[in-house]
Amino acid sequence: MFASRLTPPYYAVIFTSRLKPGADDYGVTAQRMLELAQTMPGYLGIESARNAEGFGIAVSYWKDEESIRHWKAQDEHRATQARGKAEWYEHYEGRVARVERDYSGPEGR
Amino acid sequence: MFASRLTPPYYAVIFTSRLKPGADDYGVTAQRMLELAQTMPGYLGIESARNAEGFGIAVSYWKDEESIRHWKAQDEHRATQARGKAEWYEHYEGRVARVERDYSGPEGR
Repeated sequence: MFASRLTPPYYAVIFTSRLKPGADDYGVTAQRMLELAQTMPGYLGIESARNAEGFGIAVSYWKDEESIRHWKAQDEHRATQARGKAEWYEHYEGRVARVERDYSGPEGR
Repeated sequence: MFASRLTPPYYAVIFTSRLKPGADDYGVTAQRMLELAQTMPGYLGIESARNAEGFGIAVSYWKDEESIRHWKAQDEHRATQARGKAEWYEHYEGRVARVERDYSGPEGR
Protein backbone atom coordinates (compact mmCIF):
# COMPACT_ATOMS: atom_id res chain seq x y z
CA MET A 1 0.00 0.00 0.00
CA PHE A 2 1.45 3.34 -1.06
CA ALA A 3 1.01 6.68 0.64
CA SER A 4 0.53 8.91 -2.39
CA ARG A 5 -0.11 12.54 -3.22
CA LEU A 6 1.04 14.04 0.06
CA THR A 7 2.30 17.60 0.14
CA PRO A 8 5.63 18.34 1.85
CA PRO A 9 6.53 19.23 4.43
CA TYR A 10 5.08 16.40 6.51
CA TYR A 11 6.51 13.91 8.99
CA ALA A 12 7.52 10.27 8.75
CA VAL A 13 8.02 7.72 11.53
CA ILE A 14 10.38 5.07 10.17
CA PHE A 15 10.07 1.95 12.31
CA THR A 16 12.37 -0.96 11.48
CA SER A 17 12.11 -4.20 13.43
CA ARG A 18 13.17 -7.80 13.60
CA LEU A 19 10.65 -10.21 15.14
CA LYS A 20 11.63 -12.94 17.54
CA PRO A 21 11.14 -16.44 16.15
CA GLY A 22 7.63 -17.60 16.95
CA ALA A 23 6.01 -14.17 17.24
CA ASP A 24 2.98 -15.69 15.56
CA ASP A 25 0.27 -13.52 17.07
CA TYR A 26 2.06 -10.37 15.96
CA GLY A 27 0.28 -10.11 12.60
CA VAL A 28 -3.24 -9.64 13.93
CA THR A 29 -2.15 -6.94 16.35
CA ALA A 30 -0.05 -5.18 13.74
CA GLN A 31 -3.08 -5.06 11.45
CA ARG A 32 -5.17 -3.65 14.30
CA MET A 33 -2.57 -0.92 14.87
CA LEU A 34 -2.70 0.02 11.16
CA GLU A 35 -6.46 0.44 11.44
CA LEU A 36 -6.23 2.35 14.70
CA ALA A 37 -3.61 4.74 13.32
CA GLN A 38 -5.99 5.69 10.51
CA THR A 39 -8.46 7.07 13.06
CA MET A 40 -5.91 9.45 14.61
CA PRO A 41 -5.82 13.20 13.87
CA GLY A 42 -3.02 14.13 11.48
CA TYR A 43 -2.66 10.63 10.02
CA LEU A 44 -1.65 10.79 6.34
CA GLY A 45 -0.78 7.22 5.38
CA ILE A 46 1.35 4.18 6.06
CA GLU A 47 3.63 1.89 4.06
CA SER A 48 4.91 -1.41 5.41
CA ALA A 49 6.77 -4.51 4.24
CA ARG A 50 8.13 -7.52 6.12
CA ASN A 51 10.27 -10.20 4.53
CA ALA A 52 10.29 -13.95 5.13
CA GLU A 53 13.09 -13.62 7.72
CA GLY A 54 10.97 -11.44 10.00
CA PHE A 55 12.72 -8.17 9.16
CA GLY A 56 10.24 -5.38 8.52
CA ILE A 57 9.91 -1.67 7.89
CA ALA A 58 6.79 0.38 8.57
CA VAL A 59 6.74 4.06 7.66
CA SER A 60 3.78 6.08 8.87
CA TYR A 61 3.17 9.64 7.70
CA TRP A 62 1.78 12.45 9.81
CA LYS A 63 0.86 16.09 9.47
CA ASP A 64 3.13 17.26 12.27
CA GLU A 65 5.07 16.22 15.37
CA GLU A 66 2.07 16.82 17.61
CA SER A 67 0.12 14.15 15.70
CA ILE A 68 2.99 11.72 16.27
CA ARG A 69 3.02 12.43 20.00
CA HIS A 70 -0.72 11.82 20.24
CA TRP A 71 -0.40 8.53 18.38
CA LYS A 72 2.50 7.37 20.55
CA ALA A 73 0.48 8.17 23.70
CA GLN A 74 -2.81 6.59 22.56
CA ASP A 75 -3.89 4.06 25.22
CA GLU A 76 -4.29 0.95 23.11
CA HIS A 77 -1.16 1.80 21.15
CA ARG A 78 0.84 2.22 24.38
CA ALA A 79 -0.28 -1.17 25.62
CA THR A 80 0.75 -2.70 22.30
CA GLN A 81 4.13 -0.97 22.40
CA ALA A 82 4.76 -2.55 25.81
CA ARG A 83 3.73 -5.95 24.50
CA GLY A 84 5.99 -5.53 21.50
CA LYS A 85 8.99 -4.80 23.70
CA ALA A 86 8.24 -7.74 25.99
CA GLU A 87 7.12 -10.37 23.48
CA TRP A 88 7.66 -9.65 19.80
CA TYR A 89 10.68 -7.54 18.95
CA GLU A 90 14.18 -8.88 18.96
CA HIS A 91 15.32 -5.39 18.01
CA TYR A 92 13.87 -2.18 16.61
CA GLU A 93 14.99 1.23 15.44
CA GLY A 94 12.63 4.18 15.26
CA ARG A 95 13.22 7.55 13.61
CA VAL A 96 11.15 10.68 13.33
CA ALA A 97 11.89 12.63 10.17
CA ARG A 98 10.60 15.69 8.35
CA VAL A 99 9.89 14.95 4.69
CA GLU A 100 11.28 17.83 2.63
CA ARG A 101 10.40 16.62 -0.87
CA ASP A 102 8.94 13.62 -2.62
CA TYR A 103 8.52 12.13 -6.09
CA SER A 104 6.89 9.14 -7.72
CA GLY A 105 6.94 7.12 -10.91
CA PRO A 106 7.46 5.70 -13.37
CA GLU A 107 4.23 7.09 -14.83
CA GLY A 108 4.74 10.36 -16.64
CA ARG A 109 8.38 10.75 -15.73
CA MET B 1 20.12 -5.19 8.47
CA PHE B 2 19.71 -2.25 10.84
CA ALA B 3 21.30 1.16 10.56
CA SER B 4 22.24 1.76 14.18
CA ARG B 5 23.93 4.36 16.33
CA LEU B 6 23.56 7.31 13.98
CA THR B 7 23.49 10.82 15.38
CA PRO B 8 20.67 13.17 14.32
CA PRO B 9 20.28 15.24 12.35
CA TYR B 10 20.91 13.14 9.25
CA TYR B 11 18.94 12.41 6.08
CA ALA B 12 16.80 9.49 4.94
CA VAL B 13 15.71 8.53 1.44
CA ILE B 14 12.55 6.45 1.79
CA PHE B 15 11.99 4.50 -1.41
CA THR B 16 8.84 2.38 -1.64
CA SER B 17 8.20 0.26 -4.71
CA ARG B 18 6.07 -2.44 -6.21
CA LEU B 19 7.79 -4.71 -8.72
CA LYS B 20 6.16 -5.84 -11.93
CA PRO B 21 5.42 -9.55 -12.05
CA GLY B 22 8.43 -11.36 -13.47
CA ALA B 23 11.06 -8.79 -12.49
CA ASP B 24 13.33 -11.71 -11.75
CA ASP B 25 16.68 -10.11 -12.48
CA TYR B 26 15.92 -7.24 -10.10
CA GLY B 27 17.47 -8.89 -7.03
CA VAL B 28 21.03 -9.09 -8.29
CA THR B 29 21.02 -5.46 -9.40
CA ALA B 30 19.40 -4.30 -6.16
CA GLN B 31 22.16 -6.04 -4.21
CA ARG B 32 24.77 -4.38 -6.44
CA MET B 33 23.21 -0.97 -5.70
CA LEU B 34 23.37 -1.65 -1.95
CA GLU B 35 27.08 -2.37 -2.28
CA LEU B 36 27.70 0.63 -4.51
CA ALA B 37 25.88 2.99 -2.13
CA GLN B 38 28.25 1.96 0.65
CA THR B 39 31.19 3.37 -1.32
CA MET B 40 29.65 6.84 -1.63
CA PRO B 41 30.68 9.81 0.52
CA GLY B 42 28.18 10.57 3.25
CA TYR B 43 26.62 7.09 3.26
CA LEU B 44 25.48 6.11 6.76
CA GLY B 45 23.47 2.92 6.31
CA ILE B 46 20.54 1.22 4.62
CA GLU B 47 17.52 -0.80 5.71
CA SER B 48 15.34 -2.73 3.27
CA ALA B 49 12.54 -5.28 3.26
CA ARG B 50 10.42 -6.70 0.45
CA ASN B 51 7.43 -8.97 0.99
CA ALA B 52 6.27 -11.96 -1.02
CA GLU B 53 3.90 -9.79 -3.07
CA GLY B 54 6.75 -7.68 -4.45
CA PHE B 55 6.08 -4.63 -2.30
CA GLY B 56 9.26 -3.27 -0.79
CA ILE B 57 10.70 -0.40 1.23
CA ALA B 58 14.35 0.65 1.21
CA VAL B 59 15.50 3.46 3.47
CA SER B 60 19.02 4.75 2.95
CA TYR B 61 20.64 7.16 5.39
CA TRP B 62 22.99 9.97 4.45
CA LYS B 63 25.00 12.69 6.12
CA ASP B 64 23.40 15.53 4.16
CA GLU B 65 21.45 16.44 1.05
CA GLU B 66 24.62 16.90 -0.98
CA SER B 67 25.51 13.24 -0.40
CA ILE B 68 22.07 12.27 -1.67
CA ARG B 69 22.49 14.34 -4.82
CA HIS B 70 25.87 12.72 -5.54
CA TRP B 71 24.39 9.25 -5.09
CA LYS B 72 21.44 10.02 -7.33
CA ALA B 73 23.79 11.30 -10.04
CA GLN B 74 26.33 8.45 -9.83
CA ASP B 75 26.73 6.96 -13.34
CA GLU B 76 25.98 3.31 -12.65
CA HIS B 77 23.16 4.28 -10.30
CA ARG B 78 21.61 6.55 -12.97
CA ALA B 79 21.69 3.75 -15.52
CA THR B 80 20.00 1.44 -13.00
CA GLN B 81 17.35 4.05 -12.19
CA ALA B 82 16.49 4.22 -15.90
CA ARG B 83 16.29 0.44 -16.10
CA GLY B 84 14.09 0.35 -13.03
CA LYS B 85 11.62 2.79 -14.58
CA ALA B 86 11.56 0.90 -17.86
CA GLU B 87 11.63 -2.70 -16.68
CA TRP B 88 11.11 -3.35 -12.98
CA TYR B 89 8.86 -0.91 -11.18
CA GLU B 90 5.12 -0.96 -11.48
CA HIS B 91 5.08 2.05 -9.17
CA TYR B 92 7.38 3.81 -6.71
CA GLU B 93 7.31 6.66 -4.22
CA GLY B 94 10.47 8.40 -3.07
CA ARG B 95 10.86 10.84 -0.20
CA VAL B 96 13.80 12.79 1.15
CA ALA B 97 13.51 13.48 4.86
CA ARG B 98 15.58 14.99 7.64
CA VAL B 99 15.78 12.70 10.67
CA GLU B 100 15.24 14.82 13.77
CA ARG B 101 15.46 12.13 16.47
CA ASP B 102 15.75 8.38 16.79
CA TYR B 103 15.46 5.61 19.37
CA SER B 104 15.95 1.86 19.59
CA GLY B 105 15.04 -1.10 21.73
CA PRO B 106 13.96 -3.13 23.46
CA GLU B 107 17.37 -3.55 25.11
CA GLY B 108 17.85 -1.31 28.11
CA ARG B 109 14.64 0.65 27.68
